[in-house]
Amino acid sequence: MDNWILKQAETAPDRLAVDDGKTQLTFLELKQQVSQLAGQLKAASVLDGDRVAIMTKNSLLGYLMALAVLGSGKTIVWINWRLSDDEIKRQLSDSEPAACLVADELFRESFDQQFIPFSTITNQTAVQVTLVPEFPSQTVASIMYTSGTTGRPKGVMQTFGNHLASATASTFNLGVMPGDEWLCAVPIFHISGFSIMMRGLIYGMANRLVDHFDAELIDRVLKHEPISTISVVPYMLKQLLKYRTADNTPYQANFRCMLLGGGPIDRPTLQQCRQRQIPVVQSYGMTETCSQISALNSADADKRIGSVGKPLFLTQLTLSQANQEVLIKTPALTPGYLNRQAAFQRKLNDTGWYRTGDVGHFDEDGFLYIDGRLDDMIISGGENIFPDEVEAAYANRPDIDEIAVVGQDDAKWGQVPTAFVVSDAPLDQADLTAYGRQKLAHYKVPTRFIKIDKLPTNASGKVQRFKLKQLL
Amino acid sequence: MDNWILKQAETAPDRLAVDDGKTQLTFLELKQQVSQLAGQLKAASVLDGDRVAIMTKNSLLGYLMALAVLGSGKTIVWINWRLSDDEIKRQLSDSEPAACLVADELFRESFDQQFIPFSTITNQTAVQVTLVPEFPSQTVASIMYTSGTTGRPKGVMQTFGNHLASATASTFNLGVMPGDEWLCAVPIFHISGFSIMMRGLIYGMANRLVDHFDAELIDRVLKHEPISTISVVPYMLKQLLKYRTADNTPYQANFRCMLLGGGPIDRPTLQQCRQRQIPVVQSYGMTETCSQISALNSADADKRIGSVGKPLFLTQLTLSQANQEVLIKTPALTPGYLNRQAAFQRKLNDTGWYRTGDVGHFDEDGFLYIDGRLDDMIISGGENIFPDEVEAAYANRPDIDEIAVVGQDDAKWGQVPTAFVVSDAPLDQADLTAYGRQKLAHYKVPTRFIKIDKLPTNASGKVQRFKLKQLL
Repeated sequence: MDNWILKQAETAPDRLAVDDGKTQLTFLELKQQVSQLAGQLKAASVLDGDRVAIMTKNSLLGYLMALAVLGSGKTIVWINWRLSDDEIKRQLSDSEPAACLVADELFRESFDQQFIPFSTITNQTAVQVTLVPEFPSQTVASIMYTSGTTGRPKGVMQTFGNHLASATASTFNLGVMPGDEWLCAVPIFHISGFSIMMRGLIYGMANRLVDHFDAELIDRVLKHEPISTISVVPYMLKQLLKYRTADNTPYQANFRCMLLGGGPIDRPTLQQCRQRQIPVVQSYGMTETCSQISALNSADADKRIGSVGKPLFLTQLTLSQANQEVLIKTPALTPGYLNRQAAFQRKLNDTGWYRTGDVGHFDEDGFLYIDGRLDDMIISGGENIFPDEVEAAYANRPDIDEIAVVGQDDAKWGQVPTAFVVSDAPLDQADLTAYGRQKLAHYKVPTRFIKIDKLPTNASGKVQRFKLKQLL
Repeated sequence: MDNWILKQAETAPDRLAVDDGKTQLTFLELKQQVSQLAGQLKAASVLDGDRVAIMTKNSLLGYLMALAVLGSGKTIVWINWRLSDDEIKRQLSDSEPAACLVADELFRESFDQQFIPFSTITNQTAVQVTLVPEFPSQTVASIMYTSGTTGRPKGVMQTFGNHLASATASTFNLGVMPGDEWLCAVPIFHISGFSIMMRGLIYGMANRLVDHFDAELIDRVLKHEPISTISVVPYMLKQLLKYRTADNTPYQANFRCMLLGGGPIDRPTLQQCRQRQIPVVQSYGMTETCSQISALNSADADKRIGSVGKPLFLTQLTLSQANQEVLIKTPALTPGYLNRQAAFQRKLNDTGWYRTGDVGHFDEDGFLYIDGRLDDMIISGGENIFPDEVEAAYANRPDIDEIAVVGQDDAKWGQVPTAFVVSDAPLDQADLTAYGRQKLAHYKVPTRFIKIDKLPTNASGKVQRFKLKQLL
């Protein structure tokens, strides 16, 4: 395949490529700026190795820096700026980039000479470079460390072919039109954001970058700029809805889709979206599959609360007979984890299907529901219990701020569910039990409610249930 | 990849799949009908081999028959019903299908038992069959014999991967939206028509089948049915424009594109399209690339008369330094000609580029123009002459009905252009020469004008210049 940056500069030179709210670049200008930056990266000896790490927010310069690395034929190692020094050090020591480029505002005193501020690059005198002519399908474009909720982070490798397959499957579901513009407020160092960048280069579509999630700003952008699509997580969607209550100015006419990742939405939120004519597509995917592999379209949403819809084109999806684990085949699947091929091989079953680690079920019309993580599943007296379901049952109690459920070993039942609760109020065990029995099968109700000051979470804010288990 | 018929039945069961003007089938109904037909094909022992030939117009039954063959894991051999018995026999003897299925209205007395009328199939009692679960990327879906203008026809093999790559590249240029409907009046036994069928299965998009080109009918369909796209050749476009002159009822609102193949259009036609707000996308492609690989979008058309635009995404296109031949790389490229791999290898240059046999040039902004066939090119005194250009210069003379130009060997110039003319009037050589010199460089003007009753043409109506050369 042609280098996508060069390709769009050739076929759509005058089309908008990127807009951060202050600067707009066409695809021709994008190519010029990326070439200039590539020359500066070379001058700074950053292009000597195979990989370059980047740590940035969704800024224009961060976006350009990433494309300069790709355009020079190097692999991006995306670093989450929320990580601790130790976590960053582990990822860099695993991926061995020539350098880690850091947005100036994220630079830390603790960083050594491996870390290079963006301004050091942009202050270089560019040397002459030619961008690579091709983006070969099998070449690794990006590496993202999945924080996971257990164990050592794994560097997920994503090839250009993976990104193309993902962007293609998305097209056949959401549609694509010349003039589309995708608002990117989710981090470009996660697959949710980086896949928007890749779709931009593949479709010849504009990216509207928003530096961080600011509901008021985004509501304003959706009202006044020709955005067709925005990627959101449930929290963002709910915040955006609040602004819709106060203001009836509609979004621009070509607004077509809120692509929701990170879990399904509840019925009240969905109803609000419908009242305000906001089409929501609920999706399911992971870093290992280069973004969404399954989607529930707006028209089906009402009757399928909690579902993530049906597998996209190019995705084959089935459930393991043994334990209902979601198994997939897709050309968007990572070729593996960096330096940990054995760990990746363990995630393939004996017929080559990728084991997602999620447990799911289909309804009678073939809509998929994700029940929870296989690792989190509690088996009690032969029954499966998913912490998510139990936690959701307690979510609306005023005396519970946060709750996490894990399995505790039990001589009689094998395991029993146990809850950790963050609360300012005293906990009434009997009342909590009675409450749960009204909402859940009895075996799903936690046998104990344990107060805790704070739930342990990882860098992306997911509860680390394995740490709670260690407390038992 | 999942079997696309099953996939769409699963993800878009209620969406319109095909409509011939009388019957509408959803994707779920399509799967049911295709499964039924597959059972009847099996009962008739048609599925015993690897291939099944089909000879049909764009009828619903022909469409279903083709999908029943694909859905059963067999390769379709498409037979042009305009071919002579001998030509058909050669193609069947080369491809060795288990049978040749023939639409009843196309059945000939001369056909032996290898030919099976559609009604013989539909009268079978279906046996139970399961459609194949997958359409593997490398598997050959279809074989089409290119008539070419010289030599023995070659069976171009098209894999599922080829069709997917072509449909994908088309999407990124033309856009695709849920609810799109593509009118197919070009033959489904040519890549222009069959690629519409494949896009339907890949996008989950409806095909509106029209049995043969009837401008009045198609104008009516475009006014009253929600067609988004239609594929046309220049003749069809001009005929459709005539109906637009008489009637101002606009096409339906979601009409988006006339995709034009088979050569560029002239300025007056283009201007008429613009006046009538008909967006035309001019494209370039061939059977070997599974349809379009280059396209000129409507917005660029005015300033680029005669151009076929820019290479689509996934297509790499360059010109040979030696002779300006158009060279391409694309995942839509055929893996080769059936039983003639040596002939295919000769069309690849030493760095793996496919030699199209067309000569072209780029303008200063990178728009591609096709000048003519390398085989037809006349080299006279070191200058290249393309018959198309010379013929076009004479096209408007009232005393010339048809004209074809070929090279004649010449001791002084190597070759000189010679014209064959179909005309009712006597030919005035001096006047014809003087006329040409006003319009063309002198070396391009034919040195002789030879009267002929009829130009020799192949099955698709292309002039066979090699036969004219034999007359010299």
